[in-house]
Formats: sequence, structure tokens, C-alpha cells
Amino acid sequence: MSRTVTDLDAAVNEIADEMRRRPDRGEVAAYIPELARVDPGAFGLVVIAADGHVAAAGDCDTPFSIQSISKVFTLTLALGMVGDRLWRRVGREPSGSPFNSIVQLERERGVPRNPFINAGAIAVTDLILSGHQPREALGEILRFMQFLARDASITIDEAVAASEQRTGFRNIALANYMKSFGVVDNPVDYTLGVYFHHCAISMSCRQLATAGRFLAHSGRDPETGLSVVQVERARRINAVMLTCGHYDGSGEFAYRVGLPGKSGVGGGILAVAPGRGSIAVWSPGLDASGNSHLGRAALERLTKRLGWSIFGL
Amino acid sequence: MSRTVTDLDAAVNEIADEMRRRPDRGEVAAYIPELARVDPGAFGLVVIAADGHVAAAGDCDTPFSIQSISKVFTLTLALGMVGDRLWRRVGREPSGSPFNSIVQLERERGVPRNPFINAGAIAVTDLILSGHQPREALGEILRFMQFLARDASITIDEAVAASEQRTGFRNIALANYMKSFGVVDNPVDYTLGVYFHHCAISMSCRQLATAGRFLAHSGRDPETGLSVVQVERARRINAVMLTCGHYDGSGEFAYRVGLPGKSGVGGGILAVAPGRGSIAVWSPGLDASGNSHLGRAALERLTKRLGWSIFGL
Amino acid sequence: MSRTVTDLDAAVNEIADEMRRRPDRGEVAAYIPELARVDPGAFGLVVIAADGHVAAAGDCDTPFSIQSISKVFTLTLALGMVGDRLWRRVGREPSGSPFNSIVQLERERGVPRNPFINAGAIAVTDLILSGHQPREALGEILRFMQFLARDASITIDEAVAASEQRTGFRNIALANYMKSFGVVDNPVDYTLGVYFHHCAISMSCRQLATAGRFLAHSGRDPETGLSVVQVERARRINAVMLTCGHYDGSGEFAYRVGLPGKSGVGGGILAVAPGRGSIAVWSPGLDASGNSHLGRAALERLTKRLGWSIFGL
Amino acid sequence: MSRTVTDLDAAVNEIADEMRRRPDRGEVAAYIPELARVDPGAFGLVVIAADGHVAAAGDCDTPFSIQSISKVFTLTLALGMVGDRLWRRVGREPSGSPFNSIVQLERERGVPRNPFINAGAIAVTDLILSGHQPREALGEILRFMQFLARDASITIDEAVAASEQRTGFRNIALANYMKSFGVVDNPVDYTLGVYFHHCAISMSCRQLATAGRFLAHSGRDPETGLSVVQVERARRINAVMLTCGHYDGSGEFAYRVGLPGKSGVGGGILAVAPGRGSIAVWSPGLDASGNSHLGRAALERLTKRLGWSIFGL
Repeated sequence: MSRTVTDLDAAVNEIADEMRRRPDRGEVAAYIPELARVDPGAFGLVVIAADGHVAAAGDCDTPFSIQSISKVFTLTLALGMVGDRLWRRVGREPSGSPFNSIVQLERERGVPRNPFINAGAIAVTDLILSGHQPREALGEILRFMQFLARDASITIDEAVAASEQRTGFRNIALANYMKSFGVVDNPVDYTLGVYFHHCAISMSCRQLATAGRFLAHSGRDPETGLSVVQVERARRINAVMLTCGHYDGSGEFAYRVGLPGKSGVGGGILAVAPGRGSIAVWSPGLDASGNSHLGRAALERLTKRLGWSIFGL
Repeated sequence: MSRTVTDLDAAVNEIADEMRRRPDRGEVAAYIPELARVDPGAFGLVVIAADGHVAAAGDCDTPFSIQSISKVFTLTLALGMVGDRLWRRVGREPSGSPFNSIVQLERERGVPRNPFINAGAIAVTDLILSGHQPREALGEILRFMQFLARDASITIDEAVAASEQRTGFRNIALANYMKSFGVVDNPVDYTLGVYFHHCAISMSCRQLATAGRFLAHSGRDPETGLSVVQVERARRINAVMLTCGHYDGSGEFAYRVGLPGKSGVGGGILAVAPGRGSIAVWSPGLDASGNSHLGRAALERLTKRLGWSIFGL
Repeated sequence: MSRTVTDLDAAVNEIADEMRRRPDRGEVAAYIPELARVDPGAFGLVVIAADGHVAAAGDCDTPFSIQSISKVFTLTLALGMVGDRLWRRVGREPSGSPFNSIVQLERERGVPRNPFINAGAIAVTDLILSGHQPREALGEILRFMQFLARDASITIDEAVAASEQRTGFRNIALANYMKSFGVVDNPVDYTLGVYFHHCAISMSCRQLATAGRFLAHSGRDPETGLSVVQVERARRINAVMLTCGHYDGSGEFAYRVGLPGKSGVGGGILAVAPGRGSIAVWSPGLDASGNSHLGRAALERLTKRLGWSIFGL
Repeated sequence: MSRTVTDLDAAVNEIADEMRRRPDRGEVAAYIPELARVDPGAFGLVVIAADGHVAAAGDCDTPFSIQSISKVFTLTLALGMVGDRLWRRVGREPSGSPFNSIVQLERERGVPRNPFINAGAIAVTDLILSGHQPREALGEILRFMQFLARDASITIDEAVAASEQRTGFRNIALANYMKSFGVVDNPVDYTLGVYFHHCAISMSCRQLATAGRFLAHSGRDPETGLSVVQVERARRINAVMLTCGHYDGSGEFAYRVGLPGKSGVGGGILAVAPGRGSIAVWSPGLDASGNSHLGRAALERLTKRLGWSIFGL
């Protein structure tokens, strides 16, 4: 085993150890019982290097609700389906607002600022749906995740999806608001049904890091050699993740971690080090912006130690 | 001469040739006569690689008004003077608003979103001033630019500064607004005097690319070996440039160019390719967001050709 | 017949004649086919003086969709049911925004600015519903209108209600948004069902002017002597009508007409001259703010001629 | 003495007695020392009926800083000078925002919502100034106040004006912001100099109630018979006072008091009962919206007792 690999393993293990001991863990999302029930002490970290070496520590095989991390994959899938005309429905600028803000939608006539705020992800889901039955669209998204993670056992947590559907009034508001401007084509119930379900996909850090490898390696799975997206598109998805991946905490994440990344309220974060590796971290407690508190701390530590920041050593 | 160097020269020359021929040149800033008077056909491009090789083309030695590009250097200087307590006065999140918006200041009690919108740069200038005479503070900024560019001939265009001072009502509004919240300490006239003058510094692409080298090389001038800022700080300044360097066109710049960069209404852009090189481009015509139209086009072409995007090959 | 009465008749007839001849008639609301189908040339005007004399002209017995004018009556009904605790759910300040704005709701945590913008009227409808079946609540509202207008033939236009329900995405957004803050208690479908239906009540100018008499006469029907609301409450409903009754055209209406009033997109306006009379006018064409163009013009003419402005002769 | 007069005297005396005993007095404005120094226990109330009878109680002859109440008189003066083209510079809709908000100015390109928020009053002052020397314009305003109050002893408190000028950063911001849109013509310093000085006029309740009489009586001083403004203009100024006279507390004032009125942070309120009388009240403690706490309470009591609300008995 090369020296680099040993270093990577050591880094991952030491950071995971430290994080598991830290008393400051943030607050677990509590707006639905299924998320509130998660063990706040859980912590998982997986890094898959360019050469395929996997460094894993902690609860790295425990599935958790990926929530908004799914938005990276639905964006990828939708770009594959409709190409750059996707950008007529969704912008790619940071919003300067919380994840569920509706203010910007009114000012900009129903066009969401970017695909990673809730409104934008709903508009992207609507493009994937485009006339099909919700069940089919959802199947396509799930199969895409299974393909990327090379694991057919990945499923949707129906209880989470049902809870979101019952209580997601703000998302219902966003979708209807966009519908009033013609930015949502399908029946709102259909689009939201698919949206709530893909947010409820359960994955482990290992599965997530595997699924994200194409973004670190020019759009191609470095092991199978299969191309997922064109090289330029991978680069651009990373750019949008960097500027918009953490709502109104995106600047802070870029400043501290220095990698494109996408977080979810389930406590997961997927981060991409172009040319170097794919990283997934999970710790359920969130900070004030709704991003995993220890997840970000671990990534900050990791990029500094490995010199993986895209902004310099 | 290495093959890479030859490639770099070829790329720079070909891109400059193409840009000089393009009919779509954007609109030259016209709010003050001194800027309106510039030749819209001008185009300059300079890349300084890690090994010190300089590839230059076009009007690469013509000085132009660097305007907001100066904000990168005043941020660097102010961080050196007051350290991270600078961030109590200025945030580091994208604003989602135009460069001169005042709306966000009202919502967030006078604290600007980031150091690269006008309000934020005025607050940073106020920190540099901090009790000194405007003349001294301005001297310090100018000497810092001369030191970084290794060129003592760099000067301030007094006519530009005087014009801005006479007509900069919106900046006067921003400064007084922050003053009402205690975010500006010094007399508003002093702070704005320094601000308008450092925006009126004239530099050529060659000088600008030289001055920006420390950001591409871990905070250190790779030739002299002198450290300008700590490695971590250089990385972080780059991160803020990437997320906030082009106002509400920052997402678009990251998406298309994939490098940290800062533009000015004089038509210049400074871009940083960490570990690879420092780039300055100048073309006076602006796009709708106030960024150099051909400058960005040239950078998009260049990073694609050289594979210098921080988001992947 | 007194001289005043003769004058009133003359004024009403002359103004109606003039309005029927005017070529500038505004634009008929076209967002649902049922409203678009109305004759743009229609014009009706009814004034009922304190002594019960009725001056009527034009299409004064043609029923039209009262739309937002119903909000005055649901507010009255809800105040009767829950008293001043209604004001915990709805403010009473002008919004400075269009009728269907959602921006203010985000800033003020789901509490609508006043009961006459859509969000506020939906919140009021939710209070009337409060646990009952939609059918019952709607029956109560309809019976209240029939009672006030002393006409049991008043009905709901089911085609209008069904159209609104099918296309009212923005209202669905508003209701779900408030629901997410707990400002709507009942299932959103129930509340909106009642809301869309009471907006679809059809009434003539004669019926509407009759129904509004209690507001002009200290909360009491001057003919039957029956008290509808306490004197202070009538006064206060008038105050809210004056400051908020015409969305972001409320200041203009107060400035030009000088009476409390409430308009609807069906082209009707109910206006109240305290101590003097109740006025209903109908002309389907709307101005840019969504208020009846000739309706307002007629009221401006009428109050000037009769000296009925509450702001002086 | 008529029975009405006796009643009026009794009402004024009883209300003043009650108010002077109330322990809840609000907070005296403290942003400049000259205002902070005022006795919080002061209370004055003057009503001048249509027949000229003056009912006065408490500190009715103590001069206080009229502050924003001056905006009613500068509006009147400016309308006399430039007529209805004033409304090209200033709107007449409620703003839905605090007195010193700048947000709306950005959205609406520098045109203030109405003449009674700070920005609007500054724009009105700029129209009065229109090319003259500040000293002349100020002299004109002061002479107008002396004429209306029939008292040549009214003066400007220079210490108050100087303090405002030294610390009024937010107003300086507003004026420069409007200047950037061309809504302010004169040098900002000139316009603000006049503005700060007319806000610093000192008047007693007796002087203020006298000066406001023309608004209650169709634009004419009922005693001298002199016409100040046309009848229609008086009516319209009252309308703007009702919808906009108390910033984002205007709806509340209309709801509780039911009269057109204008408050100032010095604790004074001028209220107008069309056809009935002119009222001035003064109590320095303010509520959260910046309006006199006991002043409004006294007016609420008074209009209820006298049946003077414009919205019904």
C-alpha cells in the first residue's frame, strides 16, 4: 500500500475519532419524527481516492436520509435528459437566502435562483417527470442512484416520504407558486410526490461517496470507465455545488472547506475533490443554516490535512 | 523552453487574436467621462505561470482603471492589519444582489454581505483607515500595490477619483447608511475619499497579473519567495473571490470560467489558478452584470484549453 | 320627495350616462373564462341614502361576481364569531404590495398584513371555518349575505368557483405558506374551498349597496333597526377598508375618492359614506392595480358632487 | 357658551387629567441629546372647534420640536409652489415600512412612496428649495408656519437642527440615494440643511392646532376667511395623512383614532376632524412605531367621546 493511502486512512480514522468524541453536535432535524429519531452520536466518513482506495471510518455503512443531497443527482439526470435548456427553468446564481425562501421567486417571476434551493430542485424534478407517471420518474431516479453507487439495494424510506408529504406545506407553497408562473408543468401533486420521495432515499456514506465519484473524475467512473456526463458538465455541476450547495451558508463552506459540496438535513454531506477523490460524511446534528455541524468540521479538517482545497494547498 | 510554455504562449496569442476580431464587445462604462473615453477595441491578456514564464498578448502594457479589482488587495491588506476580526464588519456570503444594492444592508443592520460588493469594500477601507489620515492610508494601499506588482511607477488617476467623488451618490448613500449602524468608524468623507482613490489606481494587465501571483501560490511570491499572507488566508481569499467576485454574476463566472476572479467596471478581470498561474485580462466593454464581456469570454476559452478550471479538467 | 333626493337621483343618472359613453373602460379580468366573458360595456350604480331612498342607474340589477368585496363581509362575520382575537391572525396595516404578494408573509412569519389582501382573507376564512365542514361555513356566509341584502335569491356561481379552484395556484401557495407557520388551522383544501366559493358569490349593485348599509350607519340597518355589529366595530371595519381596501392602490383611492371602499376583480366596488349612504358601482374593466377603472372614476365624480368625502367637503 | 363648547372643554380637561396620571408613558426619543432632555411627564392638548372655541389643557403653551409634523406643512407649501407635478417625485401610497426604510427606494428607482416618510419629505423639501439658497427656502417655510399659526414668535431650535445634521446618517443616505436617481435636484447638503431645520421648528400645541385649522375647514382659515389651499387640495392632504401619516402604524392610527393625523418623534401629533376642528396633542414618550404613546391614547379617547371619527359616530 502506498504511502498516500496510509496517510489517507490515518487522516480519516483520526478525524472520525475526534468527531465522535466532540460534545458539540448541533441539533438533529425534528420537523418530522422519522428524522428526529436518529442517534445524534452517529458519525460516518468515507473517502474514495482517485485510485479506488476507500478510507472509511465510523458509521460508514449505516443508511441515512440523503434529503437535499439527492438534488445533485436529479440535476445530473435532468441535464442528461433535457440538456442546457434546463437553465431556462432554473438559474445558477447563489440566492443569498435560506433554502425555503419564496421572496426571490416573487421578484424573479417564478424562476428559482439555482437547482439546489428547494424551489429549484422542485423545478428540476418537474423536468424529469415531464409527462410521465410519478412512479416511472421515481423509478428512473432510484435506478440512477443504484447504478452510480453500484448497489441495487438502495431504497426509499417510505415513512420519511409520507411524513414530508403530510407536513411539507412550504414546499407545496413553493411548487404552487412556480406553477402560477408556468415554471412547473406537471400537476403539483405529481411533481411534489416525486420530489419528496427522492429526498427520502436512504444511503450510507460508502454508497454516497461511490455515487459521487464521477464528479471528481471528469464525469467518468474511474473504475468502470463508464461516462456518466461529459467532462464539461461535471465541471459545471461542481461549480454550482460550490456557489450554491449550502444555501446561505455556501460562502462559509467554500471559505472553510474549499470543496464543492452538497448537504442534506439528514446530516449528510457529499463533497468532491476534483482529480483527487469523492467524500461522504454523516453526522445528524445541524448548525443554524441547516448543514451538518460536525460534517463540515470534519471536511474542514480533512481538506486542510490532505491539501485538497481547490483554492490552493 | 518547455513544451508547456510554448502551449501557453500559443493559447494566449490565439485567444487574444480572436477576441480582438470579435464584433460583440459589450458597452464601455459611461457614468464618468474618464471611463467612457477608453477605446472599446482595446484588449490585453497576460498569464504568468508558476515557473515565472509570462505569456502576454495585445494591449498588455496599457494602464487602465482597475476599479473593483482593488478590493481584492484592500481585503488582503486589511486582513493583515486587523486579522479575522475583519469578519465582524463584513460577511462572506454571496449577496444575490447587484453590486450597489442597499436592500440587504437594511435587513442585516448595516453589515455588508461580503467584501467585494461596494458596501463591503467601503467597510474594509474604513478598517484600513482606522484613525489615520486619508493620505496615509491611501499611500499604504498604493505602496502595497507597487510592492506586489514590483513596479513603483503605478499611480492613481486623480481625474477618475475626482469624477467618482463628484457623482458617487450611491456609494455616499451606502457609506452613510453603514455609518448609521456603526459599521463605518471614520468620517464618511475620509473613508470614501480613500475608497474612490484606490478604485482609481491605474494598472496594466502585466502589473495586475504580477500583483496577483501570491494568490495562486499559497500566499507567497514564487519568484522572490516573500510571503504576502499565510497559506490558509490566500486560500480563503480565493474562496471569497469565487463565490462573490462578480456580484450577481458570480455563479455564472464560476460555471463558465471555473476560477476565482474579480472584475472591475474598467473592464479588467484578475483570475487566479491555484498552483498554476495568475491571469489578467482587459477589455473595456461590459455585459449586463457590469463584468468585462470579452474578458470573461477569453478566460472561459483559456481555462478550457489549459484545463485550469478548479472544478476538474 | 326632498330636494336632496332629487339631487341624488340626478347625480347618479348623469354620472352613469357619462360612464356608459366613455371609451376608456380598462381591461376585463381574463384569468378565468367565466370572468372574461362579461360585457365590458356594462355599468351599474346604486346609492342608498340614509333615509332609505335608492338612486339607481344602468345595469343595477345585473348580478356580477363580487370576488374580493366578499372579504368585507367575511371579516364582519369572523369578528362576530371570534372577536378581537382575530387580530392575532391578521394585521391591519396597508401592505404596500400587490394583492397576491407572498414576500411580506415570509418577513412576518406567515401573518398577513391585513384582511383584505388575499392571504389575509384566506386566514379570516379559516377562522370562520374553524373545525366545521366547508359546506356549513359556506352556508353561513351565504345566509349572512342574503340577510344583509334582504334577498334570499343570492347564490354562488359554481362555475366561477370551480375555475378559481382549478387555476388558483398562487392562492394555494399563500394558504400552504401560512399553514407552514400555523396561521391556517384547517386542511388547506377546506379553507380554500370556502374562500373560492365566497369570492364567487354573484350580486347586483342594488343587493350590494343594501348589504353595505350597516357600515354607513353605525353597524345598524337603518330601516329594520337590526344591529349587525357594534358601532365601534363598524367604524373600525371602515377604517381598514380605507387604508387597505384597494391593495397597493389604497392611497390613490383615498386621495381621489375619499371614502372607505372595497373592490373586486369582477369590476365591482362597495363604498361607504358614513352617516350618508351606501354605494355600489360595477364596471368590469380594470386598471393596472386590478380595481374597476370606471367604477373608481364614477365614485370620484359622485363624492365630489355630493360633498361626501370623509376628508372634507 | 353653548352646550357643545362646555362638553368640549370638559372632554379635553378630563382626558388631559387622566393622561397626566398614567404611568405608561412610552420612551422619549434619545438619538439626540436635545430631544432626550425633555420632561417625560409633559402633556398638552388643544382642540380648536369650527366656531373658533379653544379647549386647552396641560402644557398647551410649551414649545416642543415638531419634527415630522412639519412634513404636512412643507407638503402644503410645495403643492402651492409646483402643483400636482409634485406627484412625479413622490407617490401617495402607504409604504408598509418604517419611516427611514431605504428598501422601497431601491425597488422603485428612487421615488419615495409618500411625502410623509423621511425620503418623501426630503424630496418635497428639495422641490421647495429648487435653486434658491437654503436660507431663503427655510425663511419661506418658517414664515408660512408663523402665518398659519398667527404667531410670529415661532422659531427654529438651532441646537436640535445642528444635532440632527451631525448624526443624521440615515437621512444623508436616503438623500444621496435619491440623488443617484435624479429625484433630488439640489446639492444634497442644501436640501438636507433645509430639511433638518424645518424638522427643528418649535411650536406649542396651541400654535400647532391653530396652524392646522385650514385642513379641517376646506382649505380656509375659518376665522380670517383666508384661503390657504383649494378645497380639493385640503381634502387630499387629509387623505394622505390618513393613509400615510404614521409610517407603518398608519393603519393602527386609522383603526383606533379614525382621524387624519401626523406625528413627530418630538411626541407631538396634529389631527384633523374635517368640518369639526383641529387638534394638537403632545406627550414626549413614544411607542414602538415612533408615535406618541399617550398622544394617540388621548386622541382615541377624544374622538370616541366627541363622535368625531371620520368613519362613523
